[in-house]
Amino acid sequence: MALMQLTMIPLGEGVSVGKYVAEIQTRLQEEGATFQLTDMATLIEGDVPDLLQLLAKIYETPFEHGAIRVVSNITIDDRRDKTIHIGDKIEAVKKRS
Amino acid sequence: MALMQLTMIPLGEGVSVGKYVAEIQTRLQEEGATFQLTDMATLIEGDVPDLLQLLAKIYETPFEHGAIRVVSNITIDDRRDKTIHIGDKIEAVKKRS
Amino acid sequence: MALMQLTMIPLGEGVSVGKYVAEIQTRLQEEGATFQLTDMATLIEGDVPDLLQLLAKIYETPFEHGAIRVVSNITIDDRRDKTIHIGDKIEAVKKRS
Amino acid sequence: MALMQLTMIPLGEGVSVGKYVAEIQTRLQEEGATFQLTDMATLIEGDVPDLLQLLAKIYETPFEHGAIRVVSNITIDDRRDKTIHIGDKIEAVKKRS
Repeated sequence: MALMQLTMIPLGEGVSVGKYVAEIQTRLQEEGATFQLTDMATLIEGDVPDLLQLLAKIYETPFEHGAIRVVSNITIDDRRDKTIHIGDKIEAVKKRS
Repeated sequence: MALMQLTMIPLGEGVSVGKYVAEIQTRLQEEGATFQLTDMATLIEGDVPDLLQLLAKIYETPFEHGAIRVVSNITIDDRRDKTIHIGDKIEAVKKRS
Repeated sequence: MALMQLTMIPLGEGVSVGKYVAEIQTRLQEEGATFQLTDMATLIEGDVPDLLQLLAKIYETPFEHGAIRVVSNITIDDRRDKTIHIGDKIEAVKKRS
Repeated sequence: MALMQLTMIPLGEGVSVGKYVAEIQTRLQEEGATFQLTDMATLIEGDVPDLLQLLAKIYETPFEHGAIRVVSNITIDDRRDKTIHIGDKIEAVKKRS
């Protein structure tokens, strides 16, 4: 299992884009995704084929709400020696301190 | 049409990872993708549903060649007011200078 | 005030790199930074000149602990119409739901 | 020596932001930087302390030209076992094909 960090930035839609972030959260909830909002991105857990399919499903959201250009930043951390869930990595680092 | 910037970084596979970059280029050629290698990433052009499907197809490449953990960074620039091809944005900026 | 999202990935140092993440948290604490660890990155708040100076100060940490190659991903969200603190953007999105 | 990949995206300044990209190229030339424009980013070579100082110098450029909010994506690839120059990594991958 992997973690995906997603940010979608609409250009030319004003300086505040919280509306677009909220719409994506709604779509992720509708799709039954396991996700967490941070101040800079949305973290979603799952296997990568599922994550990419989910991304394809929600990807149109900002365009459906008026955006003409969107720059999306996606980071996927995928390890095969153990499963990764949201919260695991923070725990692992805290144990070291 | 959009541009996707892709970097796949295998962890724990040594300091030099050019072998993995080369394997991904080979896979992109096999898939008939329109792409360009830069010093920091691979740029691929296409519509986003096709780009995400292509990504799903080539994604296993580093794992098939031994990687156990891979961090992938993906940036998608997608605009609906005109098509974007590799080379277009560089041209547009040069015209301004 | 801005938010900086920072990830430093050492290559060739094994599949688990939590040790390096923990060292960076320690350095940020020593520097008196206001920061938050997420599962994919560290968020740090401050004005950009200060954030870049802080980054320069802590940047050598993974190399000091043995890393030979490090890929760092940094995202800075900087707006001049209002200050941004850690937690603000999550709050703003929640208010919309 | 390291490579830095830089993208600065102004929000709310319209869908086309080539003007801002061009201004950053001009600033990099004025600073005597060794850099290359790709379709998705600007690549700059140098030692990391110099790169961060350079970034601090040019960082205000989009704000000086009217932007109120800018999201910057920066990737730094820094290895200490050999120097990296623009063009080197592409060459290394081509030799493998």
